[in-house]
Amino acid sequence: MIQVAILGHGVVGSGVAEILIHHGERAQRAVKTDLNIKYILDLREFDHLPYREKFTKDFEQIVNDPEVRVVAEVMGGLHPAYDFVKRCLLAGKSVVTSNKELVAAKGAELIRIAAQKNVNFLFEASVGGGIPILRPMVQCLAANDITEVCGILNGTTNFILNKMVVENMDFDKALQLAQQNGYAEKDPTADIEGHDACRKICILATLAFGRHVFPEQVDTHGIASVTKEDAEAADRFGFALKLIGRAAKLPDGTITASVRPTFVSRERILSGVDGVFNAVSVTGDETGEVLFYGKGAGKEATASAVVADIFDCVKHLDSRKYLFWEEGYEGYVNNQTDEEGQWYVRASSPRYSDLLARFEEQFGNAPTVFKNEYRGEIEWLTAREKASVIREKLASLQDISTVKIFDTMF
Amino acid sequence: MIQVAILGHGVVGSGVAEILIHHGERAQRAVKTDLNIKYILDLREFDHLPYREKFTKDFEQIVNDPEVRVVAEVMGGLHPAYDFVKRCLLAGKSVVTSNKELVAAKGAELIRIAAQKNVNFLFEASVGGGIPILRPMVQCLAANDITEVCGILNGTTNFILNKMVVENMDFDKALQLAQQNGYAEKDPTADIEGHDACRKICILATLAFGRHVFPEQVDTHGIASVTKEDAEAADRFGFALKLIGRAAKLPDGTITASVRPTFVSRERILSGVDGVFNAVSVTGDETGEVLFYGKGAGKEATASAVVADIFDCVKHLDSRKYLFWEEGYEGYVNNQTDEEGQWYVRASSPRYSDLLARFEEQFGNAPTVFKNEYRGEIEWLTAREKASVIREKLASLQDISTVKIFDTMF
Repeated sequence: MIQVAILGHGVVGSGVAEILIHHGERAQRAVKTDLNIKYILDLREFDHLPYREKFTKDFEQIVNDPEVRVVAEVMGGLHPAYDFVKRCLLAGKSVVTSNKELVAAKGAELIRIAAQKNVNFLFEASVGGGIPILRPMVQCLAANDITEVCGILNGTTNFILNKMVVENMDFDKALQLAQQNGYAEKDPTADIEGHDACRKICILATLAFGRHVFPEQVDTHGIASVTKEDAEAADRFGFALKLIGRAAKLPDGTITASVRPTFVSRERILSGVDGVFNAVSVTGDETGEVLFYGKGAGKEATASAVVADIFDCVKHLDSRKYLFWEEGYEGYVNNQTDEEGQWYVRASSPRYSDLLARFEEQFGNAPTVFKNEYRGEIEWLTAREKASVIREKLASLQDISTVKIFDTMF
Repeated sequence: MIQVAILGHGVVGSGVAEILIHHGERAQRAVKTDLNIKYILDLREFDHLPYREKFTKDFEQIVNDPEVRVVAEVMGGLHPAYDFVKRCLLAGKSVVTSNKELVAAKGAELIRIAAQKNVNFLFEASVGGGIPILRPMVQCLAANDITEVCGILNGTTNFILNKMVVENMDFDKALQLAQQNGYAEKDPTADIEGHDACRKICILATLAFGRHVFPEQVDTHGIASVTKEDAEAADRFGFALKLIGRAAKLPDGTITASVRPTFVSRERILSGVDGVFNAVSVTGDETGEVLFYGKGAGKEATASAVVADIFDCVKHLDSRKYLFWEEGYEGYVNNQTDEEGQWYVRASSPRYSDLLARFEEQFGNAPTVFKNEYRGEIEWLTAREKASVIREKLASLQDISTVKIFDTMF
């Protein structure tokens, strides 16, 4: 019998408790032993629950109980989660968490402590909810050098963008609908501004490339400024408009890391990931692109990933899983690179004939162009060129027109 | 330094050798130790290779060398692979394989021997080439009860069906093209008749539901009788025509297992899996549907999955991974169930007015119908009903017309 503690009894925490209590046979099947929840830490009262006697408000009781071997942190937020997780690891307990904010900000330190104490720190649920991503990436693709990891990492924004395209809905209306359906929080800033996707791409990039990436190093743009017109334009050009988190290895060993609304080619399977679903694409030098898809959030899905990590800790109580990475270094994340690419551009000007002249001069080589004299607007897909070249060409247009640009992904 | 042997130096085997020899740093990264290929078993001569001194034609040398801890079987076929793998396991060596025929036919016996000898028998590469599927299904979804596993398991047939739809190509022409591109073997029977997909769904069903499923228990249909008209019809009704391997759990604990050309709804992400790509969809009771996508074959991809399994064996040289299943029982695989569903039906008759009358009588409730008096043909999607009801209704039509039926998947 292995004793477990759960920190937090919110949406995910209650899901973890329910699986462990109602489906004890799954622990038997997976690890050939029984698990018992000895404590659940929460400041609220849960007197109506049949397992009410497990609740405690005192973290010290948990961290000082040597019987507790595995702790699931499902409180969310940096504080006090960081302090609690650190103290549990230092006390020789394995910890699993679904807390992406914690892993993105403090993962490097926590994994180092876990290694020193010969315990495990696992966090499969922190990216993609119930979708298996981190473990397959680290274990199954171990014979690969990963060159790129990217994906749709936030269900709320994907739901909103999808509504804007398919139902021609305004941003505000779509956000409201997401909130009504329980997909978006009352304060949707972390989703809309891209912070949530940013934390997840940090974790993915860290594991894919072996050095810690911090949220503030990621070039993060949300979807607040995306309009219905943008979504329609993507469709017209044969793309789907998605919020894409992306990290890629550069030849010199540095990486790029970004979260940006992106035109994703309809040829890519990622473009078909709709609604609240998430998908992560990993490219290995041997295996090419592999993609993991599923519901990226939700009580049961996320809780089941936490429980699978608990099982894995129980299997490896006396041996560490090989999960480790190094610190980054100055300039390791380098978003000022001058990669070749194609961009979608829309320019409009009251001086349409001037705009047209400059467009022909600078972008005459564009493979796809739509011109709308009535609206004084030109939109096009650029030819494949270096970002610096495109920027220079655009400067001449920006003098006389309003310009909007999106990354593309083929 | 861990000593490894490779049985077979064909497409996959040479890929395994190349990764281990040219990318030794990946072993260091993954398992913190060096691996050395001590033997490569092949009857052919490879005198031109820089690592020619590793070759042997004598299996006894390998099985009797106690230094060899891990053996990769990449010969394919049942014999002598079965005998070799069994003897290696009995000799206390861990074995990894990409051989789906071997695992589907003899996996239950081999995993039992591995358990007795406290060694590992891993076969991630046997399903989906380089796509991580088996390990995530067993480990990451361990807190789920899996209810269904299905997918596009054969790249060759998917390539052919895709060509038939997108380029309006005949079956024979598409097959020829697949052979020219190296996707299909000279003797394409195993692909075309569904045997390859059948072996893979056996392995998936075995791991998903915990009892061995043998190829002869699967209701297997290939694509030899699929025509361009069928592919077009699928498109017209909002589906993609795919060869789908599927296994699902029934309420009484038995399972169904089949390989059939299927109309897959365009709403499903599976329908967008084109060309030689594979995808496996796994539905868990907690996590809902998750999907794994990538190239299902190819030298480097498959070899990298074999190497990842070698790494995993090295990590667990003295401890077994929890991979185990039981024997099936009489009636465990039950394809005579009477599940509800919707089917696509096309009926044609020289007596069109009679056909029409009987159609209205039996299938007046069909939600989608196309009638073509000129060709004496009606095609429709049935309402959702039990298979037995549909069969009975069809009997009356079959008296007077030729009927073609496909499963659908929403």
